[in-house]
Amino acid sequence: MSYNLLKGKKGLIFGALNENSIAWKVAERAHEEGASIVLSNTSVSMRMGTIDQLAEKTNSIVIPADATSIEDLENLFDKAMEFHGGKFDFILHSIGMSPNVRKGRTYDDLDYNYLAKTLDISALSFHKVIQVARKKDAINDWGSIVALSYIAAQRTLYGYNDMADAKALLESIARSFGYIYGREKKVRINTVSQSPTPTTAGSGVMGLDGLMDFSDRMSPLGNATALDCADYVLTLFSDLTRKVTMQNLFHDGGFSSMGMSRRAMSVYNKNLVEMEQELEYKDVKNPK
Amino acid sequence: MSYNLLKGKKGLIFGALNENSIAWKVAERAHEEGASIVLSNTSVSMRMGTIDQLAEKTNSIVIPADATSIEDLENLFDKAMEFHGGKFDFILHSIGMSPNVRKGRTYDDLDYNYLAKTLDISALSFHKVIQVARKKDAINDWGSIVALSYIAAQRTLYGYNDMADAKALLESIARSFGYIYGREKKVRINTVSQSPTPTTAGSGVMGLDGLMDFSDRMSPLGNATALDCADYVLTLFSDLTRKVTMQNLFHDGGFSSMGMSRRAMSVYNKNLVEMEQELEYKDVKNPK
Amino acid sequence: MSYNLLKGKKGLIFGALNENSIAWKVAERAHEEGASIVLSNTSVSMRMGTIDQLAEKTNSIVIPADATSIEDLENLFDKAMEFHGGKFDFILHSIGMSPNVRKGRTYDDLDYNYLAKTLDISALSFHKVIQVARKKDAINDWGSIVALSYIAAQRTLYGYNDMADAKALLESIARSFGYIYGREKKVRINTVSQSPTPTTAGSGVMGLDGLMDFSDRMSPLGNATALDCADYVLTLFSDLTRKVTMQNLFHDGGFSSMGMSRRAMSVYNKNLVEMEQELEYKDVKNPK
Amino acid sequence: MSYNLLKGKKGLIFGALNENSIAWKVAERAHEEGASIVLSNTSVSMRMGTIDQLAEKTNSIVIPADATSIEDLENLFDKAMEFHGGKFDFILHSIGMSPNVRKGRTYDDLDYNYLAKTLDISALSFHKVIQVARKKDAINDWGSIVALSYIAAQRTLYGYNDMADAKALLESIARSFGYIYGREKKVRINTVSQSPTPTTAGSGVMGLDGLMDFSDRMSPLGNATALDCADYVLTLFSDLTRKVTMQNLFHDGGFSSMGMSRRAMSVYNKNLVEMEQELEYKDVKNPK
Repeated sequence: MSYNLLKGKKGLIFGALNENSIAWKVAERAHEEGASIVLSNTSVSMRMGTIDQLAEKTNSIVIPADATSIEDLENLFDKAMEFHGGKFDFILHSIGMSPNVRKGRTYDDLDYNYLAKTLDISALSFHKVIQVARKKDAINDWGSIVALSYIAAQRTLYGYNDMADAKALLESIARSFGYIYGREKKVRINTVSQSPTPTTAGSGVMGLDGLMDFSDRMSPLGNATALDCADYVLTLFSDLTRKVTMQNLFHDGGFSSMGMSRRAMSVYNKNLVEMEQELEYKDVKNPK
Repeated sequence: MSYNLLKGKKGLIFGALNENSIAWKVAERAHEEGASIVLSNTSVSMRMGTIDQLAEKTNSIVIPADATSIEDLENLFDKAMEFHGGKFDFILHSIGMSPNVRKGRTYDDLDYNYLAKTLDISALSFHKVIQVARKKDAINDWGSIVALSYIAAQRTLYGYNDMADAKALLESIARSFGYIYGREKKVRINTVSQSPTPTTAGSGVMGLDGLMDFSDRMSPLGNATALDCADYVLTLFSDLTRKVTMQNLFHDGGFSSMGMSRRAMSVYNKNLVEMEQELEYKDVKNPK
Repeated sequence: MSYNLLKGKKGLIFGALNENSIAWKVAERAHEEGASIVLSNTSVSMRMGTIDQLAEKTNSIVIPADATSIEDLENLFDKAMEFHGGKFDFILHSIGMSPNVRKGRTYDDLDYNYLAKTLDISALSFHKVIQVARKKDAINDWGSIVALSYIAAQRTLYGYNDMADAKALLESIARSFGYIYGREKKVRINTVSQSPTPTTAGSGVMGLDGLMDFSDRMSPLGNATALDCADYVLTLFSDLTRKVTMQNLFHDGGFSSMGMSRRAMSVYNKNLVEMEQELEYKDVKNPK
Repeated sequence: MSYNLLKGKKGLIFGALNENSIAWKVAERAHEEGASIVLSNTSVSMRMGTIDQLAEKTNSIVIPADATSIEDLENLFDKAMEFHGGKFDFILHSIGMSPNVRKGRTYDDLDYNYLAKTLDISALSFHKVIQVARKKDAINDWGSIVALSYIAAQRTLYGYNDMADAKALLESIARSFGYIYGREKKVRINTVSQSPTPTTAGSGVMGLDGLMDFSDRMSPLGNATALDCADYVLTLFSDLTRKVTMQNLFHDGGFSSMGMSRRAMSVYNKNLVEMEQELEYKDVKNPK
């Protein structure tokens, strides 16, 4: 089921930890669609995950880089362009982490050093990647850059904590740099706001089970999977979407445009009736 | 608790059926804040409801009008300006009805004559009110026009049916006419997107109970009441908001900016666990 | 440059008038990408335009239909399914017309019969097409429906008149029906909000020249052309975007996310200076 | 023209530099409306500006604080509560500064230490103010917190640089903390997205002249002034808006809902025609 949609294109993919990662699926599918890719992740993530298998499978190499370090990024782009023998056509940024979430600091008790790290890792790294790429003139005209986001950037979700602010910042950076890079080199920059996905990073970030069920029942098409997301990202890397830029694109089975579905409401209501019955029962037993 | 916020102002209020109506509360509060008002509703609604009591209470008169009839509106404005001895400062449009909802026609089986009526009554009447007002030059410079809307204009809610489309159209009319009327006469036009409210109209439109509970638990400040809404609308009629126009303003305790709250999630999750237990129980009793 | 992206898919395309039409380009590109298509337009448009050439070029047939007529649509779907030997995979709705614009009625002097027609032709026809398709079970699971929209649905543009309200209604219908059709048959429904495009319809609707220049200079990638739009619509018809639904997708070179570009500002500023100089000159000549 | 709208309320206002400041106007108007206020600014700003005159005029005190310093904020809240003899009812955050803008670093050449400062001063300070307030339980139930924002958070404006990202982050913080503080104490948190305003800060941030003219001609009601903004902010501090939270509220004369106005287009077009004439003239003189 390959269309050769990315035939001859060269890409750089950040954030493939293991086979559950969206970035992993993007790398696999991009390879199937004819692209040549370079993978990058932090040294820690490389040890924790299985990215080497992905590199083998996709005939690519892994270049370690901390995406918050300009030095690392400069080295990465030099080596990646060497591997590709030239400029890139696309970049995927799939990077996010909140020390506040990991350490259990709630949003009204944030550690501000942690917050600075959340923003640096999850959002500012996107600016750094693009700024370094642009200074090295590493991206071909009409290239495409995508970062993964989440609807928490627009609507507050219990427990998502400072990652919501990081995603809002990330989406703003896509707009701001999309203007600059677009007018000069026709490079487009977008974010994809994906359904909650059971990746390792996702499960680290929040208690996803109930939310994923709710999200699935709210969305007429159900939650989008990591593989669905990869397919969609491919279209954004392809030449068929060259005039789409500075957008946050919801890839979520319709969730973002739903107020309430019958399926989600039926779960919610069932309990409601029971809770009221319990309350009435208690009232009977304990008359005021 | 009056601030004389609308002292000396003259208004026209559509849609007060009975004391549960938002328009009723707006009329009462506008009167308390020093405004002189004229009430209007259809003849049918006047018989069904108790608007005469409101007129007495607020020293106003009731002028019957079908807001979809230009002739009725022209007569209304003539008489209302006569009553006021001059132009208006504010208008409230709180009108909505869907024959498709009433007759139980689902959204994939709409009757198109009914749909035309839904749109005419719930949205185009807003254009008609404004166009007639403007042709009669019935509104003072820096006047304020407000219509009541609902978040269904942005996000689909099970059962809200073609009223969602009517609200989207209503909000668009506010923007389109807000530009025209603003540049000429500085008249501002906004919509207020209100929490689901247990009015007679609201309960007619959809099965609200479960949704209202969900909405209440999702909203950090809980659902806004009809009285809350009246207070808010007063600020939009006052001279303190003269540069706010062409906006859809959410007055909903925060609902519109929520993705998931802890309170709503806990109801949902509790039930999910029970549903799964029931399924397991059935599996034990009825092994496949 | 075909990817066989729509290989084996069957489609129905409304609104191809002549080779400037977006629908025309979509038909051509869909054919190139392996789809089998049926074309439809009103009898009047068929006579005015050159759709027969397109049918020949794409091995398709033209079935006349007034998309506001249920009877016509029923006939159309029957014949189109006969041609295809089965169900559809995609539909394009590219239909819009405002009698108020044509007759020069401004937004504060709308003829309400014309307004009803604007809405019926430009928005309700979309509901009718989908409702008839669904009743005839004419669309395969995971099918895709797209309508063309414009940013006037969100932001008022001088001269766009009641078409703005029609587009807001159209986008709402996409959401409302997207929920219903999605949960049942996984059919997705989206609107594409396209740059101003010099089609015959577009030029009829408004004086586009100045606006198109402004839009082009505001957009970092420039205005999207009809061909660009066709390419983008193909991705939405393909299997790579199966979880995107109920969205309004901006395809506009970045315009929708721009507040002010350097290129547009420089034109504006240059003139502003000149206007002030002219005013000073007049003051010198005509001292008050 | 006082309504006693804030009678008995106690407030804290950040960011009044001089009489052009929005915060200055808010302080004056809040005082007129019956509020007791405390002013705060950095030591540097206090020396640069004339805040002492404002304190005298409004019977308030000035407590210096760097809003990025937790220690300063703790001291500020202790002293302010001492002055008030209890908790606050409202807070205004009007703080923003970008070292990248000041030092002329363009968005594709940002200094990342400066960027961290831009975000800390202009956005994270808002979180810090709220977190410290909440830890000290310094705000009464149903209190109101407002920060000033700008449409650059949604749409890219040439030259606004990293302040756009800071404003997007600021608005996200309002939502995130609005949920937390709302559910617990009914404290509401909103941002006001104000027209470009000729304050000292504003003029420092960007070359405003042309943009302000464009913005004024695009907005049907013209740009909102600092005094207009103060009036609007008062309504958000009052008891009449208690169910409005987690919102970004445009106070901009309609700008945010405009795509193109006749007035702005006429300036733009005039030049366009001339430019084309010049080009034709050149073509005549320099035939290719």
